Amino acid sequence: VTRLARSIVLTIGDELLLGRTTDSNSAWLADRLAAIGAPVARMETLGDVADQIAGAVRRAQAEASLVVTTGGLGPTADDRTLEAVRMAVGGREVDIEIPNPRGVEPARWYEPSDDAGALLVLPGPPREMTALFEAAVGRIRTSLADGLRSVSARTIATTGIPESRLAPDIQPLVDGIDGVEVAFLPDLHGVDLRLTVRDRTEAEASRLLDAAESAIADTVRPFRVSAPSGDVVEALTDALEARGWTLAVAESCTGGGIGERVTARAGASRSFLGGVVAYSNGAKLSLLGVPGLVLEEHGAVSEPVASAMADGAVRAFGSDCGIGITGIAGPEGGSPEKPVGTVCFAASTPAGGVVTTHRFRGDREAVRRRSAQAALVQLLRLIEEGG
Amino acid sequence: VTRLARSIVLTIGDELLLGRTTDSNSAWLADRLAAIGAPVARMETLGDVADQIAGAVRRAQAEASLVVTTGGLGPTADDRTLEAVRMAVGGREVDIEIPNPRGVEPARWYEPSDDAGALLVLPGPPREMTALFEAAVGRIRTSLADGLRSVSARTIATTGIPESRLAPDIQPLVDGIDGVEVAFLPDLHGVDLRLTVRDRTEAEASRLLDAAESAIADTVRPFRVSAPSGDVVEALTDALEARGWTLAVAESCTGGGIGERVTARAGASRSFLGGVVAYSNGAKLSLLGVPGLVLEEHGAVSEPVASAMADGAVRAFGSDCGIGITGIAGPEGGSPEKPVGTVCFAASTPAGGVVTTHRFRGDREAVRRRSAQAALVQLLRLIEEGG
Repeated sequence: VTRLARSIVLTIGDELLLGRTTDSNSAWLADRLAAIGAPVARMETLGDVADQIAGAVRRAQAEASLVVTTGGLGPTADDRTLEAVRMAVGGREVDIEIPNPRGVEPARWYEPSDDAGALLVLPGPPREMTALFEAAVGRIRTSLADGLRSVSARTIATTGIPESRLAPDIQPLVDGIDGVEVAFLPDLHGVDLRLTVRDRTEAEASRLLDAAESAIADTVRPFRVSAPSGDVVEALTDALEARGWTLAVAESCTGGGIGERVTARAGASRSFLGGVVAYSNGAKLSLLGVPGLVLEEHGAVSEPVASAMADGAVRAFGSDCGIGITGIAGPEGGSPEKPVGTVCFAASTPAGGVVTTHRFRGDREAVRRRSAQAALVQLLRLIEEGG
Repeated sequence: VTRLARSIVLTIGDELLLGRTTDSNSAWLADRLAAIGAPVARMETLGDVADQIAGAVRRAQAEASLVVTTGGLGPTADDRTLEAVRMAVGGREVDIEIPNPRGVEPARWYEPSDDAGALLVLPGPPREMTALFEAAVGRIRTSLADGLRSVSARTIATTGIPESRLAPDIQPLVDGIDGVEVAFLPDLHGVDLRLTVRDRTEAEASRLLDAAESAIADTVRPFRVSAPSGDVVEALTDALEARGWTLAVAESCTGGGIGERVTARAGASRSFLGGVVAYSNGAKLSLLGVPGLVLEEHGAVSEPVASAMADGAVRAFGSDCGIGITGIAGPEGGSPEKPVGTVCFAASTPAGGVVTTHRFRGDREAVRRRSAQAALVQLLRLIEEGG
């Protein structure tokens, strides 16, 4: 009988034991390992002490079919993982090194043996760790082969509705489909629904996931992000490119965050012309042509100013579509009528426009991120609805 | 002889092993335990499996003077911590229960014995966990008494130099001061040096940290971030405000990322007027007044264009200082003379200006983040040097 695969994650670094750094690697790895069918049985966080690391690696290899370590690989004297791994494997040679596309230290892979699980040694910086883990997935699948559990999952990205409102409607619908679980994964851009089916054939899993997706389709439709990646920016740039339209943005409270997100995607220049960050009233007047009277009468954070900013961006860049956003990110600057978190945003296309006001909860960063997301979603919905 | 206190943190919950929840309790506890002198030796994350939890508690109590568990105390069937603790302590009665001001489950405290460390059992929800830990601190101090260590640390932020170049110069200087350790903590904005002294009186620790800081002062000076927080944006806005200067930026490859970072700080509007994201050549011409001939002759990614963009930002916003940045973030768009990662950035103040070209490694995100950081640092240095 093949033993079902299970993993142990070891996270290494004195800074973690001092509480100076929150460990995001463990949760990321746990999620990915569950997804490829080698769920995590336990995780351990260790300091940069070679003896201690070596002991933990040996014990983990005796317990689990796969051990993944992160951290402690840097060039400095306080990085002890390689020394510890050499002690743990008793001088065995590394079976393969996977080059690091985002840094210096490669990943190291040791094949499993009769009495020890496979060992994958990864660097600690999350960008490097994630890229190298993905590069190692093929190797993990080959080596653990039949031991891997079958896990099929499908993610449906939503935006514009909190978990607390989404879950009570969705949960009973999914509970009605035997064998499907749903998890709600919220972040500042929205809530991802993850549907999971375990230990079924691929065809059966696919049938169950289809059934669950159908069951919740009507409920999620108003909030669903249409891009396959679940990324609103991808959905928006696809929608713009399909119509041959270009975009310019006028930002105040987000300070450049919308432009930053749009241009994070390679090829953004095909539809994105640019933006104005009009942090001062003077810039709203001179660069975006927001009328002084409108600013005076309604205040900088108002729907008329947001609309005038969107129009100003379209004019300044000669674009087809525009976004205007102005708000109070806090912690200062709120008033009884316009408390911190009040944000006005306007979207315009050649076919029409829309302007709304939201009141966001949370700190400055949360308000700014949610605002940028809401502005992008508003333009996307306007385009999708033919506006 | 009193054994010096060390702690082990056990975090319990299936959701953590599935990567559904990022564990913030461990880092919080690690920080607090280090601060009260019972630093964490290792941390472990376990599922809701009574046998496994009991084994981990027993092992941890044998190793450490204090064991803290969080999670698995709820009312549902999958919460197994209490059952596991009863197995681990072999029927011993709890010594004290501390009532929960923010929830139902109290904290449970078991005094240390000759062969087992103290045990503190806390619920998992962070608001409840933190309140109950604070309520237990007096008990921890009394029980561990003389074993508690003193730990003092100081962080020095640097930017513009990689860990691999910084560490070989810094390490031997710190090694020369007995009792001081140094750790190097890199991210995309720079490398933090953390100096740590353990098991000394406060006065002695302070003297040693001063000595270490003096020893490395000359070496880190060119790269040191002057702001107390180590944040370049804070240092730059402080420098601008001290001189009564304002700032405007002209961004291309960073797409708004510089504006976004500057405005992430509350109160940015005191010195930041705004920016232009000139993603297209048309925008560079019309909004920033970059001469068409300069664009044609040198190309969009060139020092003359970066300088003209900085000047254009100063003109457009009427600011005292300007930043211009243009580059190739990739993955497309590189050429043999100007490969991906080539970025030109200009800074100007009323007293002068500077323009440089860097070639950054890494993917699109890394190039963009490092570019934004380098542009901010360049202006800060120019101001600090009186330029």
